[in-house]
Amino acid sequence: MQDVISFIEANQQNYIEELKEFLKIPSISTLVENREDINRCANFVASKLKDAGMSRVEIFKTEGHPLVYGEWLGAPGKPTVLIYGHYDVQPVDPIELWDSPPFEPAIKDGKIFARGATDDKGQVFMHIKSVEAFFKVEGSLPLNVKFIIEGEEEIGSEHLELFINHNTDLLKCDTVLISDTALYEEGVPTITYGLRGLSYMEVEVTGPNRDLHSGTFGGAVGNPINVLSNMISKLQDKNGKIMIPHFYDDVLKLSKKENDNFKRLKFSEKKFAKELGVAELQGEKGFSSLERTWIRPTLDCNGIIGGFTGQGAKTVIPSKASAKISMRLVPNQDPAKIAREFTKYVKKIAPKSVKLKIKDLHSAYPVLISLNDASTVAGTKAMEKAFGKKIVFIREGGSVPIVTTFVKKLKVPTVLMGLGLNSENLHSPNEHFNLNHFRLGIMSSAYFLKEYSA
Amino acid sequence: MQDVISFIEANQQNYIEELKEFLKIPSISTLVENREDINRCANFVASKLKDAGMSRVEIFKTEGHPLVYGEWLGAPGKPTVLIYGHYDVQPVDPIELWDSPPFEPAIKDGKIFARGATDDKGQVFMHIKSVEAFFKVEGSLPLNVKFIIEGEEEIGSEHLELFINHNTDLLKCDTVLISDTALYEEGVPTITYGLRGLSYMEVEVTGPNRDLHSGTFGGAVGNPINVLSNMISKLQDKNGKIMIPHFYDDVLKLSKKENDNFKRLKFSEKKFAKELGVAELQGEKGFSSLERTWIRPTLDCNGIIGGFTGQGAKTVIPSKASAKISMRLVPNQDPAKIAREFTKYVKKIAPKSVKLKIKDLHSAYPVLISLNDASTVAGTKAMEKAFGKKIVFIREGGSVPIVTTFVKKLKVPTVLMGLGLNSENLHSPNEHFNLNHFRLGIMSSAYFLKEYSA
Repeated sequence: MQDVISFIEANQQNYIEELKEFLKIPSISTLVENREDINRCANFVASKLKDAGMSRVEIFKTEGHPLVYGEWLGAPGKPTVLIYGHYDVQPVDPIELWDSPPFEPAIKDGKIFARGATDDKGQVFMHIKSVEAFFKVEGSLPLNVKFIIEGEEEIGSEHLELFINHNTDLLKCDTVLISDTALYEEGVPTITYGLRGLSYMEVEVTGPNRDLHSGTFGGAVGNPINVLSNMISKLQDKNGKIMIPHFYDDVLKLSKKENDNFKRLKFSEKKFAKELGVAELQGEKGFSSLERTWIRPTLDCNGIIGGFTGQGAKTVIPSKASAKISMRLVPNQDPAKIAREFTKYVKKIAPKSVKLKIKDLHSAYPVLISLNDASTVAGTKAMEKAFGKKIVFIREGGSVPIVTTFVKKLKVPTVLMGLGLNSENLHSPNEHFNLNHFRLGIMSSAYFLKEYSA
Repeated sequence: MQDVISFIEANQQNYIEELKEFLKIPSISTLVENREDINRCANFVASKLKDAGMSRVEIFKTEGHPLVYGEWLGAPGKPTVLIYGHYDVQPVDPIELWDSPPFEPAIKDGKIFARGATDDKGQVFMHIKSVEAFFKVEGSLPLNVKFIIEGEEEIGSEHLELFINHNTDLLKCDTVLISDTALYEEGVPTITYGLRGLSYMEVEVTGPNRDLHSGTFGGAVGNPINVLSNMISKLQDKNGKIMIPHFYDDVLKLSKKENDNFKRLKFSEKKFAKELGVAELQGEKGFSSLERTWIRPTLDCNGIIGGFTGQGAKTVIPSKASAKISMRLVPNQDPAKIAREFTKYVKKIAPKSVKLKIKDLHSAYPVLISLNDASTVAGTKAMEKAFGKKIVFIREGGSVPIVTTFVKKLKVPTVLMGLGLNSENLHSPNEHFNLNHFRLGIMSSAYFLKEYSA
């Protein structure tokens, strides 16, 4: 194993040069004009998988962007790990805020700057290189490996979801390894073992059948904006508790082990508030910010609109107002059940003076991986060896719907071994990836393959 | 007097032809491309005033659109009435909804269709024609008359306000006669003796210093939309009562006479709700719809915006959200005091997790004219004679800021002798004016000059 690690150390410069080639391809999934780049990028990934030693590499066409699949199943009796990642990237706007062109990778202060550097090209490339190192040094892998690398993560993974549903045999594995999340802090080995789910609703309130003059009619008719505001105010009490009946029924309590883990993280509420520019944080009473974002379900309005929103004054009572309201869910809340309870409650609190239209726009199941799962244990040991430090276990407030799909359809755990940092401007100008984390990531991946094979 | 009335009867067709010429001029005050039409329209009004018999007619240039002034002061010892109106009109969009071109007057079912027909060309023209009838029949007027006809009513009357401030001597009078409001119902003589005032505020709530991912941060930071909604919900209690301290301090109680008048109006709440398309009306508990719109102060959100308002779902916590909130005021509420109390209360109910920006966008004083005032009494008799029916006294929920200016600066009452109907599509496609009301309006104006001179 030491030879593999030494090989990885010795080849850092080559890896960076190859990563640059990957980053030069503007594989923006949401833009039609980048369609050819997407195909070029899929071919690039396929050739890298072949070069790395995969015995079968295939590009699967979809109704959307192609999926790149690779496998090496030369270790019968050993477990199989499926490595997931994505080669597509976010758009680059606002382009004028980039210090260097987004598709001309630049290295500065030990970081590589380019669109996709941390999300997710740099991270998916770590696994390709660790696999390659095994083949180069040992001629084989210690276990069976499959890769599935998609081109639609930034636009919802629609076709990968379909592909998984129809190809559970092809993708059969014992665990899924993903590097698309963040370290808790720079240089701190981290495994993310929980993700929040989501129920995203839209509520449209219609009052009078047309916009009215607020002088002539004001006071005699339910105003959709006021009504909607009142309804939103009834979704939470003054302590931030969500008032929807049965909302908390299925919420798991934090285990003692998790609680102890969180306490070790030494999170500074003061620094957090300062960084956000707020005089005071606000959230569910009795919980810390980490708990509020990781283990507690929440409710946020993501958008609201109604009436006159231009400059100045217009004396109108609008006919309609609407709001997008999403709830982040935690294990074991069920988004379908939450959407039903939300709808029932919203109907109940609406006055008879208005009509309602309620839409369920989007949902995701929460995920919780046992810290005792074999692949989590392997991931822990792997990162601790690579970093030479004790691991921290964290959760993530957002949702990664594809993880739920892997867990539900393939019926296996996942290991979220992300090497990014939340400060690396993913989705923003000047996205970058810490090259030391890139190096430690390749080693962590190699250690993982070894540890999990045992 | 009977001769004057007969003359008016006999000349209906001429009046309608002349009115058509007035309506053909597209004097849209808000559009730069109609600047020349505005000037042409001012000249048209001036020439009609001269033709009617005014001894002095002058067009006053302003920084905006011209004011047309006319006077005849040949009745020393008699009172002076100032007649106000406006020759500018609203834009015509959406043009495709007009059944006939907006500046090609068309007569159908006893109504004249054109932009400005009821608001206000048709109505201001009634007074010019009644004055003319006196001169033609009697060679003089029974009292002194001044006209001030502006071209900026639809865009805020800014330059007339300034003109009044600087020309109180020129405009000196005993009462102001205005026809720019509506009859209670078709064929029912009506005087409007009260107008609501206005305090129009804007509240901007800023939470975090940037838009945040609602997964990563949701639950740990004050969401400006939720905070704003909560604040709006605290502006009124569940009975529709406004919770701002001292808000109701200066509200006048309804007199017995007014109350009896309102009861005579036989307003149908059911018909009102049906016409608005709502299953239930909503407003301050314990008051009828007429009371809610005429004699009670109210609070309405006129606009709200924050976060993602496009199609579909975006998981964002916005940095900002804002709402336009206006309060209709009744005598003797003071908009400056109300704006102060609003600001104080909103600051008080805002949590420390957000910053506030509160703007006072617009205000107007409420107006109440005594039913015992000599000009109101004259107006009452005049309309009752013209219509052959008993008058009804109504209030109006909206504000007409220029009325406040007349009352405050010239220190005289006003008579709001409007001949329009709220159903005549003012500000909308297919604006029209009932020609029978046009006829009765000219007579009412003539009777008024006679009655008020006595």
